[in-house]
Amino acid sequence: MMRDTDEAGTWREVLFYPNTNIMEELKIFVPATVSNVSCGFDIMGFPVSMPGDEMYFRKIRSREVTIGAVLGAEDIPLDPARNVAGVVARAMLEEQGMPFGVEIVLEKGIRPGSGIGSSGASAAGAAWAVNRLLGDAYDEEELVSFAMLGEQSISGARHADNVAPALMGGFILISRYDPLTITRLHYPSDLWCVVFHPFVEIRTKDARAILRKSLPLQDAVRQWGNVAGLVAGLQQGDYELISRSMEDVVAEPVRSLLIPGYEEIKSNALDAGALGCSISGSGPAVFALCRGKEKAEEVREAMEKAYSRREVNWRSYLSPIADEGVKILS
Amino acid sequence: MMRDTDEAGTWREVLFYPNTNIMEELKIFVPATVSNVSCGFDIMGFPVSMPGDEMYFRKIRSREVTIGAVLGAEDIPLDPARNVAGVVARAMLEEQGMPFGVEIVLEKGIRPGSGIGSSGASAAGAAWAVNRLLGDAYDEEELVSFAMLGEQSISGARHADNVAPALMGGFILISRYDPLTITRLHYPSDLWCVVFHPFVEIRTKDARAILRKSLPLQDAVRQWGNVAGLVAGLQQGDYELISRSMEDVVAEPVRSLLIPGYEEIKSNALDAGALGCSISGSGPAVFALCRGKEKAEEVREAMEKAYSRREVNWRSYLSPIADEGVKILS
Repeated sequence: MMRDTDEAGTWREVLFYPNTNIMEELKIFVPATVSNVSCGFDIMGFPVSMPGDEMYFRKIRSREVTIGAVLGAEDIPLDPARNVAGVVARAMLEEQGMPFGVEIVLEKGIRPGSGIGSSGASAAGAAWAVNRLLGDAYDEEELVSFAMLGEQSISGARHADNVAPALMGGFILISRYDPLTITRLHYPSDLWCVVFHPFVEIRTKDARAILRKSLPLQDAVRQWGNVAGLVAGLQQGDYELISRSMEDVVAEPVRSLLIPGYEEIKSNALDAGALGCSISGSGPAVFALCRGKEKAEEVREAMEKAYSRREVNWRSYLSPIADEGVKILS
Repeated sequence: MMRDTDEAGTWREVLFYPNTNIMEELKIFVPATVSNVSCGFDIMGFPVSMPGDEMYFRKIRSREVTIGAVLGAEDIPLDPARNVAGVVARAMLEEQGMPFGVEIVLEKGIRPGSGIGSSGASAAGAAWAVNRLLGDAYDEEELVSFAMLGEQSISGARHADNVAPALMGGFILISRYDPLTITRLHYPSDLWCVVFHPFVEIRTKDARAILRKSLPLQDAVRQWGNVAGLVAGLQQGDYELISRSMEDVVAEPVRSLLIPGYEEIKSNALDAGALGCSISGSGPAVFALCRGKEKAEEVREAMEKAYSRREVNWRSYLSPIADEGVKILS
């Protein structure tokens, strides 16, 4: 899993960087995030407690941003101008007149292209940590805006449905962008999430291209009825309403075609008692919401069964909806 | 205003019907309802405390449904098969094996074609009262379903966004119809509503025909973002969020063209401090939500000013969102 360090070239050097240049060090955990959340296409997301990335930040005297290394993932550029964490860190430091530099080492626990916010985690982590090193120069909403720059640099879309939940924790609604309007929804405490990640690659751009560019009015009404029901169900702790509302007539019907065995994963989850099951982000990860840990364990097992005879690797995770976003490790 | 009774033929006779045929009498008030509620197209509604209809019901031995009279409105048919109250009453009684008959007299306080649930009030009132006369044979959800039959008989659409709030009171979400899913949303207690009703006629069918049959995906996402924000804002009592979320990119842009001076009514309302302003139902009534009675009075005055030099009659109403739906008067 570990990147070939000789090819990567620099991370060993970074880790042994002369200490005199280092002003402060910070190690954080950034959670993966489920976004879209069925009917909540483009407007909702929440973090899970597993998996997540670890990120190391060094505040250095040299006024530059560098990516020292990326561990645990191929193909993530070390060039800070093409690395989402680098893009975010640079934007923040430049706005502050580049008072110092930052070196970043990413240890990816979230596989890129999984649909659970890999780039979002890098962007959110960078925003959070650099702000900390800047002495909390920015508020939460500003951090989300900076993190969105990172998302934009990789996908072309300035979206917040991964970075906001990764930064803030909780069940997050981004109801609009002008002005940026982020709300932490109430949700019942016993809401658990299973993430099932089949190792097939779907690029966000491709997953977006497959979507219809317009919707019949009746489908749109159906979707916002479900969105309203989901928000109300979460706020009122009404599991039955949450369950009824988890229907997506927009993205799931087409994106599910890109995920081998999707129908079986989903029907297994629902048969085992999941409240709902849909695609996380643009996939291929599939998530299910469940009432209680015990039920979630049964659902996880049922989802895994759908892949017992498939030649595709996968990984699954079980987690409550994480109340917390980025955490300091040291 | 009163219907020509000689032409109508029967209401005088009804009011002097031989007493021996009358088993029970009931007089109720049914509130007008604001539906759609800006972004909440087709899925939300709430009753106001003014205006409303009064409806008289007589449980009679003759096993038939008759409309004795319609007071205060022209053009509402007395034929029970073509009168929404008659349609609803008949459906309920027939399902119960027609144990008795009902005579209905409607005194319309809600002008038909106003956009504040005139037909919905007749349908909801009939469902509520006939159920009462049946000894509460049906639950609330069943009453909504019966009342929808009345709406369907007049508009062709089986919709609940007027009848459910008229029956139940409160801020009502109908998030889906299969299965019928009705939720009473929490909302802040100091939420007031101004209804401004210009006396121009818009038929529900025409208002529906003018809508685009499909939506660009980005407009749809914008709408359901606002819907989610509105539900969250109501539930959390967040006036700022309610205000930001009251934007409709679907119906208002086209339907407002049918309402003379709409832009001025709306901008006056917003300038005076309304949280939001939009079209009630399919119009022409316009509603504004406000924080507090005092603010609502200012907003009402501002909306009226938009019509000070117009040759169109109008009427305005000020009311909190009514917690109660149908009420017994005697």
